[in-house]
Amino acid sequence: MDLSHETELEGRAVAFFRLLQDRIVGELASLDGQPFQEDAWDRPGGGGGRTRVLSDGRVFERAGVNFSDVHGELRPEFSRTLPGDGTHFRATGISLVLHPRSPRVPTVHANLRFLRRGGATWFGGGTDLTPYYLVDEDAVLFHRALREVCDRHDKSFYPRFKRWCDRYFYLPHRKEPRGVGGVFFDYLGAGAEATAGEVAPPAASECEQDAESVFAFVRDLGEHMMKPYQEIVARRRGEPWGEGEREWQLLRRGRYVEFNLVYDRGTLFGLRTDGRTESILMSLPPEVRWRYDFAPKPGSPEDLSLQAILAQRNWAEGTVGR
Amino acid sequence: MDLSHETELEGRAVAFFRLLQDRIVGELASLDGQPFQEDAWDRPGGGGGRTRVLSDGRVFERAGVNFSDVHGELRPEFSRTLPGDGTHFRATGISLVLHPRSPRVPTVHANLRFLRRGGATWFGGGTDLTPYYLVDEDAVLFHRALREVCDRHDKSFYPRFKRWCDRYFYLPHRKEPRGVGGVFFDYLGAGAEATAGEVAPPAASECEQDAESVFAFVRDLGEHMMKPYQEIVARRRGEPWGEGEREWQLLRRGRYVEFNLVYDRGTLFGLRTDGRTESILMSLPPEVRWRYDFAPKPGSPEDLSLQAILAQRNWAEGTVGR
Repeated sequence: MDLSHETELEGRAVAFFRLLQDRIVGELASLDGQPFQEDAWDRPGGGGGRTRVLSDGRVFERAGVNFSDVHGELRPEFSRTLPGDGTHFRATGISLVLHPRSPRVPTVHANLRFLRRGGATWFGGGTDLTPYYLVDEDAVLFHRALREVCDRHDKSFYPRFKRWCDRYFYLPHRKEPRGVGGVFFDYLGAGAEATAGEVAPPAASECEQDAESVFAFVRDLGEHMMKPYQEIVARRRGEPWGEGEREWQLLRRGRYVEFNLVYDRGTLFGLRTDGRTESILMSLPPEVRWRYDFAPKPGSPEDLSLQAILAQRNWAEGTVGR
Repeated sequence: MDLSHETELEGRAVAFFRLLQDRIVGELASLDGQPFQEDAWDRPGGGGGRTRVLSDGRVFERAGVNFSDVHGELRPEFSRTLPGDGTHFRATGISLVLHPRSPRVPTVHANLRFLRRGGATWFGGGTDLTPYYLVDEDAVLFHRALREVCDRHDKSFYPRFKRWCDRYFYLPHRKEPRGVGGVFFDYLGAGAEATAGEVAPPAASECEQDAESVFAFVRDLGEHMMKPYQEIVARRRGEPWGEGEREWQLLRRGRYVEFNLVYDRGTLFGLRTDGRTESILMSLPPEVRWRYDFAPKPGSPEDLSLQAILAQRNWAEGTVGR
């Protein structure tokens, strides 16, 4: 293993994620018309980050875009679930969750990260879309854009990472996916050691990508993943909605909270290991409702939207007008 | 071990919890002026329950009172964290969470339960108070009423169970207790085997209570635990509040959600083992807000209330007028 090369890659990954945060925040601020506030923070155990949040914007009720570059020692029982050796780690990446005000505009989440444990390094991340009122064309646009990026690097990526996303962003206690999915991957570039983790990764042999190729894919995804979302915002932001649509949005946001607090590995890892709580929980929606035993009226727009989400369709295949 | 006696105790515990639900629901409905809806449900793995919920009441924005009596097989890795032997279990009990509409009225939670794993049986439960605008006299009233019940049975109960409650209802990622506490206990009556569990119980020798004495304590607590809360509701329900107080209540309810979804063992156990989701999550508040990096203005009523909660005081000692 060429340690100097790894270190150089690490430095480039850090620089890329930092610049990507700048670029995405710039684009979102201009889309919304409101500025982000910035908090730089240090992690007691090593490293730190830069959290940027937009609250009460025109488009976004809350938009959070976080960059972090942290390192230190993993708890032994946690380190055993990761590729590599020992307890020393470094993790750098960007994560964002955008909660629009309008129920016509979907929520989106994206995360890209580089990890090193001992001598093993890998990339992970993905992006997924959570519509309240699903418009088929939007899900198709989102998935096709992701497939296009994936296909430039490896034809096996999109189908594998789409399935992985469907499995990961799923609420077993509700028997519901979180939304229409997208792509999700982990341990990419870690080689044959990539067999750990709660969500089983694909067979290790499929992951045998060299670090440079993987980084090229991650850069490409980072540079293009927000484009379909911005197009969806442009399509939907002017559409009318009222109290009924707002109520449905707030109830569905409850599912977002349930997923992030009960299942999301990044959230739980952060909360339990001295992460900066406000940066971790900026993923939670600004306003949420729960109603006992609520179900949408059969055949209503809310019900049809939910049924389409439950179907976990192959959106990139183009099922519009079925 | 006298199995016939255990079975007879079990039957009496089930009957007591069922009647207690009737009584508490009757009292709350008359306090609120609105009726509860009832859902009877079966658990696929064995047993079932009766969930009663009041929504959009005059006093309560949501009040949920659940009775359950379930049995079946525990997953082996979970069963190892409990006293007793084997994987067969029975669990019966009552649990309630009341979310008042007025920010002047505290939220309250209570739970009493009987468990059997193999040849071991025990009781657990407790009750804790979560004020938004803390009035010292209310916390004192609540704790003194609990101490009075405890003292009738064992002078060591109240101080031990008060500390246990303070440790259990705590959010490490916020470094905040959930509220002013109350009492919490587990494994009571299980004898020397009671050494398992995430929250370390007191030394087993302290728990050497015979099952009949423990059941007498649980009955006494069940019959008296709601009285101080009803008195607090009577004191506070007429007090005025506005948008500012409502905002603070909704933000603090976010902490309630964080505790229940990230830490509460009953909630997580239920969600991960085929429990009835709507009965488990009726504990969540009907409306919640999160604001990025919010802290109350130093010296404001919200700040003073939070500071008093952070202090985890010995309320039963009477600190009013300090």
